[in-house]
Amino acid sequence: MPVDPKAPVRISALNWVPVFAQGHVRDLRPRWALEEAGIPYAVRKLDVMAERPADYYEEQPFGQVPSYHDDTVSLFESGAIVLHIGRDCETLLPRDLAARARATTWLIAALNTVEPFLMQLATIDVFAAGEEWARLRRPGVIEMIDKRLARLSDALREKSYLDGERFTAGDLMMTTVLRSIDGKGLLDRYSNLVAYKARCQARPAFQAALAAQIADFEERESVRA
Amino acid sequence: MPVDPKAPVRISALNWVPVFAQGHVRDLRPRWALEEAGIPYAVRKLDVMAERPADYYEEQPFGQVPSYHDDTVSLFESGAIVLHIGRDCETLLPRDLAARARATTWLIAALNTVEPFLMQLATIDVFAAGEEWARLRRPGVIEMIDKRLARLSDALREKSYLDGERFTAGDLMMTTVLRSIDGKGLLDRYSNLVAYKARCQARPAFQAALAAQIADFEERESVRA
Repeated sequence: MPVDPKAPVRISALNWVPVFAQGHVRDLRPRWALEEAGIPYAVRKLDVMAERPADYYEEQPFGQVPSYHDDTVSLFESGAIVLHIGRDCETLLPRDLAARARATTWLIAALNTVEPFLMQLATIDVFAAGEEWARLRRPGVIEMIDKRLARLSDALREKSYLDGERFTAGDLMMTTVLRSIDGKGLLDRYSNLVAYKARCQARPAFQAALAAQIADFEERESVRA
Repeated sequence: MPVDPKAPVRISALNWVPVFAQGHVRDLRPRWALEEAGIPYAVRKLDVMAERPADYYEEQPFGQVPSYHDDTVSLFESGAIVLHIGRDCETLLPRDLAARARATTWLIAALNTVEPFLMQLATIDVFAAGEEWARLRRPGVIEMIDKRLARLSDALREKSYLDGERFTAGDLMMTTVLRSIDGKGLLDRYSNLVAYKARCQARPAFQAALAAQIADFEERESVRA
């Protein structure tokens, strides 16, 4: 679904991030959900190098991306946005009450049980690189991540997706979380997780969302120089 | 709503935790939601000192508490459980689509934007107390927490609850998250957050849930000795 500046749905995104973060900013999550649901959307681009405009805190109290706006509601938190987009999209959230609750369970497991440890590693490797605490702490964080991945691998077993043979919003969220440790080799010992992540990323909606996030980054003089 | 061993709803909890953690284990969240909804529930108590029974991983893949089971579904993740309990309880999730989405937003903000930093502080102060990395890292984590609390305070302003004048599942979750830094003095400079947390904790449903969690802890010879 192409980005459409006139669409009633609007998300926020950043106008640029360093190469290592391109394709990993959290607006990827609503973009992917909107692609799965076939809903066109507009983008409010925020200048990554500037202070957030004061009015942005009205739509995202923590100043982060993404926010979400449509004819009925203004939201933030990528998890809540994906659940809202999924409300009428059976690909994301099955109509069956129990299956819908399980999809929500996996979405929140991604955000609250898996992502916090992966974010600690990102802090250590990027924002605190070279600091003594980061050097001392890294092995402990790697161990915690591995414990989570081991449990996740056991839960997935030989299924195609976390709740069985159909993709849900829970898989969307878990995939974006697992992508945050790309290139670190942490997933490699869990071959079912590697195949699962590849299976989710092969979805046309994911590919379209990824391309759209990257297409929205602007060329920057400071980088081209 | 008293705990009822014959109730069709069953959650899991621990049979004991150290005093500093009593009243803070995450089964408090579904207990509180069930009290708000007026739904009786049974408790599967897990021995905190033993390995989790193998069958427990079937209901909670990461081995944590709480899990949740009713006539229609087995779930885990306290956030997903509270959303499921709230589906027919207007106190927790308003029927209006937009208000419901905003309540969900605040619930996920508690779990994904606020709690991860508070959990890092718990790791530093309890599980890694005395370690060099923890000593070096603590000021940075305190700073991150304070930034989040400042934004949260700005978002709350003079409202009674995060989305206005009515309590929702978002407030339930945010209150349980903010309680995890009780006694550290971090909330004190935000008088509206202090009053907000007290307002939520004054709810009879919260008080009943707290009493029920503590009542379920068993006396232990090792502690009484």
